[in-house]
Amino acid sequence: MGGSRRKPKKQAYVRSAADSRDDDLLWGLNTVAEALAHNPRGLREIVVQKGKAGARLQEIIETARAGNVRVRFVDAERMGVSRGCKHQGVVARQAEVECVALADLISAALQRSGRIVILDSIQDPRNLGSILRSALAAGFDNVIITRERSAPLSGTVARTSSGAISRVNICQVVNLVETLKLLKEEGFWIYGTVVGQDAVSIYSSDFSGNIGLVIGSEGKGIRPLVKKHCDHLVTIPMATDFDSLNASVAAALVMFEVVRQG
Amino acid sequence: MGGSRRKPKKQAYVRSAADSRDDDLLWGLNTVAEALAHNPRGLREIVVQKGKAGARLQEIIETARAGNVRVRFVDAERMGVSRGCKHQGVVARQAEVECVALADLISAALQRSGRIVILDSIQDPRNLGSILRSALAAGFDNVIITRERSAPLSGTVARTSSGAISRVNICQVVNLVETLKLLKEEGFWIYGTVVGQDAVSIYSSDFSGNIGLVIGSEGKGIRPLVKKHCDHLVTIPMATDFDSLNASVAAALVMFEVVRQG
Repeated sequence: MGGSRRKPKKQAYVRSAADSRDDDLLWGLNTVAEALAHNPRGLREIVVQKGKAGARLQEIIETARAGNVRVRFVDAERMGVSRGCKHQGVVARQAEVECVALADLISAALQRSGRIVILDSIQDPRNLGSILRSALAAGFDNVIITRERSAPLSGTVARTSSGAISRVNICQVVNLVETLKLLKEEGFWIYGTVVGQDAVSIYSSDFSGNIGLVIGSEGKGIRPLVKKHCDHLVTIPMATDFDSLNASVAAALVMFEVVRQG
Repeated sequence: MGGSRRKPKKQAYVRSAADSRDDDLLWGLNTVAEALAHNPRGLREIVVQKGKAGARLQEIIETARAGNVRVRFVDAERMGVSRGCKHQGVVARQAEVECVALADLISAALQRSGRIVILDSIQDPRNLGSILRSALAAGFDNVIITRERSAPLSGTVARTSSGAISRVNICQVVNLVETLKLLKEEGFWIYGTVVGQDAVSIYSSDFSGNIGLVIGSEGKGIRPLVKKHCDHLVTIPMATDFDSLNASVAAALVMFEVVRQG
């Protein structure tokens, strides 16, 4: 499975027709400045409104140029965003998200943290973005997502991820069960996060070794066949009968616990 | 400060004019059934479309009646939701969120977990809802929020909280600094969650005793004057220079760590 290949081959993600026209845009002085500071490579261009001035806008223009991000000046009505959007004279267009091949993602993981987070059908784009953000912060910089049942890697995901979307390796797979089998052959232990008292608490689980951590969708959790292929099922212990956490919160809790133990 | 009063006095939250008309509504068979199962007291009434039938709808009607939730049958065009909303013949109207007085919240906390989470200006309603949900799951069932700079306790907050909004005690305060002073007098240690390496890692902090845990807003964090009144500043250690987590994720990580240690 190409374990010798070192450099992940990038494949452009094909934008779905459902994405809205301005879904790859960021706007406003703060947001654009932050995106430029943290991830200039994730931006295709900066669009500045003609006639606008100000110290912060000037700083954005200079940072963009220093970071080789194209700067374009246009009239107010050609900023590309919806009417009523408070862009403060600056809009950034995000670059397309590039996905890596599975074999490349596995080698990247084996060379570094040995940790992969696997998202089984996360359909809410904000949750997906938030999980990418937490994954990068925690140190899970390799992410596998299901191609068919996941939210498309849209601008909403990118914005919610705070730029993490272009700093983690993302691989889209069609058959998650086959992917888990392959990961096991490559020496990964597969942990599935579930709700309920049958599973072992994350605080008493042993997360050593190479880990593939499966997170299920909000509502339905991990699909049954996928769950069957997990080596261990783990759960977040809760204080009450209120057995309910947002999917992105649950994902973060488990990822940070794995890293805390490591 | 009324430590002897046992039953929190409830004050109806005054809905802000900015809330949209249907912002206190839930709809769809799944959503309504779940709200009824977990928190019938949080619902003011169930509205059922005349002429609609089905086993699951029938079950909802029976559960509502058993839980003393009013059921009302109306024509399709009078369901109260926006056009195009897929309500499947059933809509639930949520009860107003009731807030408790500070003294009552403090006595409730002292009688139980000794844990209060304090939200300094969380403005995103989804983050606020998600934090309420995590708070209940973790065991922080007393929540203080700032009255002026926080998202209103709208239907969006209620929905995102998965019903937790009516199962935790919520107190809105005007002056957070005065509130922290009072909490200290009552024997609480105040921990502020911040970003950066100057603070102590949450994993090496000692969270024993009665705890007031302050969470700052997305973007700006805890306000400087509020931060000055914290006894300890703690931080979530991150794997990379990417020092960024969604506010609701950060809140959950710290709350669950406090409980894990306890």
